[in-house]
Formats: sequence, structure tokens, C-alpha cells
Amino acid sequence: MTDRLERQFAFLNEADRLKHVLRATTLVDGSRPENSGEHSWHLALYALVLADQAGPGVDINRVIRMLLIHDLVEIDVGDVPIHSQNGTAHASVETQAAEAKAADRIFGLLPNDLAADLRALWEEFEAAESPDARFAKSLDRVQPVMANLMSGGGTWATYNVSFDQLESRVGSKIANGAPSLWDWVREKCIAYFHF
Amino acid sequence: MTDRLERQFAFLNEADRLKHVLRATTLVDGSRPENSGEHSWHLALYALVLADQAGPGVDINRVIRMLLIHDLVEIDVGDVPIHSQNGTAHASVETQAAEAKAADRIFGLLPNDLAADLRALWEEFEAAESPDARFAKSLDRVQPVMANLMSGGGTWATYNVSFDQLESRVGSKIANGAPSLWDWVREKCIAYFHF
Repeated sequence: MTDRLERQFAFLNEADRLKHVLRATTLVDGSRPENSGEHSWHLALYALVLADQAGPGVDINRVIRMLLIHDLVEIDVGDVPIHSQNGTAHASVETQAAEAKAADRIFGLLPNDLAADLRALWEEFEAAESPDARFAKSLDRVQPVMANLMSGGGTWATYNVSFDQLESRVGSKIANGAPSLWDWVREKCIAYFHF
Repeated sequence: MTDRLERQFAFLNEADRLKHVLRATTLVDGSRPENSGEHSWHLALYALVLADQAGPGVDINRVIRMLLIHDLVEIDVGDVPIHSQNGTAHASVETQAAEAKAADRIFGLLPNDLAADLRALWEEFEAAESPDARFAKSLDRVQPVMANLMSGGGTWATYNVSFDQLESRVGSKIANGAPSLWDWVREKCIAYFHF
């Protein structure tokens, strides 16, 4: 048991480093970049509050767990902003390989049973195929949109993003797991981009 | 539905402010104070990873939900460090009244059904009587202990805390919801305080 707790805390102490990983997106008031630790909290809260936007078969408790761990690989790899490199960065083979290696190291700190469980949950999120993962991905995409709307442009201004680019890079992914949510947010985005 | 989403996002955007609330405790590497948003994420991860430390009847999914919202009142009230004011600050009538008023305002942003659900969950956490709340409180107490151990003293040095004070103010509360966890952490603390 003592060795088990040593490994659980080796992981929990290492996870603390996610609070140092800065994202391109700022806080809602635009005052500073958001870090991936507080982002993960905010997303889990999104899942709790927007559960009624999830489709049939979605288990919100699993979505919350997925969101709590979804960015841990960034401790080694950093955050890759969706609007950098023409919005394709997340799909690159190099990034995927680096994230898999990071997952080996970070989840590997845990006792074997927990390492396997959380690694599988992270892989499910990355694959974005299960209902839970699709909803989790939708929330991960909508939260920066809200931050940009609230802060007056944010990463859209940084990367000179058009509404059409937003819709193809981000909107389509939000709609994939939460269509009604994208319908509502889309109207807010149109108002921002066209006025 | 549109009005419902307006209220859900009014709450989620307001919740963003928790990322500005600074705690007395630092990050594990001692580099800066932790904010209450990233703290809430780390605690939810603690619950996920330390679920095997929970007693009978504990529902980890409810514990995680509780920890995601437990500090939201700090948006209005701020964080009250446990070792300030002789470790009694959290029990003061004034603080409790201010936190209840903050809960009225912040949870009141939500649609009525969600407001009632999350307010009840927060009150259950504060009461620290149910098995879920007792375990959640234990995690809330143990995480700063680990940060202090990792960073070489932290708030124990700031507030000149002795091992006996730590045991009575914090250890007893950790042991209340997670006795084996406190047994293990206690040994680490003894090593810190006596050598």
C-alpha cells in the first residue's frame, strides 16, 4: 500500500506541472494567458453545467474524468493552438507521436491498474469516436470560443482567423458532439465577426 | 432553451474569475501561489487517483463534482488560509455568512434546477458530514500538505506552524475522511518537522 501511494503521489505531484503550461487563449477578461490546469477545471465545470447538451448515451461522469486528464501530455509536449499552422497542428504525425510518448511517461508513474485505466480514457478522448469523447471534444472546442468572444477577439485576432475558418476548424467539431450548442454559439460568433 | 444557455454561460463565464483568486499555498515547485481554479482541478484529479482511499459508501463521481464547485464562493470572499488566525478562520460566523451570500449570487446565475442542485452539493461539502463530503474535505486538506512538503515548507514557514498544530488543524480533518491517507502523509510530515 505504501508503494502504491508513492506512485499515486508521484503522478499527482507531476500533474502539478500542467499549471505551468500556457495556452494561446486568455482568461475571459483578457488579462493573461490561461494555463492548462485551470483550463481543465473549467472544462470539467462546463461538462457539469452543460450536461443537457450531450447526446444520447453520454455518461457525464466519464466525460468529466476524461476532461480532467485530457491535457496532461502537454506537460511534455506543450499546447498546440488550433489556429496556429493553419489549424492542422493537432493532426500532425509528429505531435501524435510526441503525445503518445508523453502519455507513456506520465500515466506510467501510476500504479499499473490506474495507469491502464487513465491511459485508455485519454486514448478514447484523442480518438474522438465514442459519444463521451465526442462531447468532451466539443466542450474543449467551445470554451476557447467563449473566452475569445468575452475578451474581444483573443486568438482570432492573434492568428487573423475568419468566420469561415472558425466554422471549419472549430465549429464543425463542436457541432459533432453538441449540435445545439454550436447553433447557439454560432450566432454569437456571427455577431462578433460581422459587426 | 436560448435563455437557459444564456444563464448557463453567465455562470461559466463568471466562474472564470476563480482563476484570479490566489491561495496561500504555492505550486509544488514553490514558484508562485496557486489559484483556486487550478487547485480545484488538482483536487478533482486527487479524487480520481486516490479513490481507493475512500471509505464505504463514497461515490467518487459525486466527490469530483463537489470538488469542482467547492471554492466558487471565493470569487466574492477570497481564500481564507487555514493557518491564518490560529487555524480557526474557516469556522467564523462572518465568513460563513459571506460565503452563503456569495453562493446565493453565483449559483443564482444558473437556471433554477441547476442552481438548486449545485447549491445543495456545495452545502453538503461545507457541512462535512456525509461520506462524500468527508472524503472531499480530506482531499482538500491533504493537497496543500503535499505542496508544502514538496516546496520545502510553504505556508508552514509563512505562519510558523508546528507539527502539533498541523496535526490538530489539518491532520485530524484528513483522518476524518481518509484515515489511511493521513497515516501515510503523517510520516512524511514527521520527517519534515523533526529533521
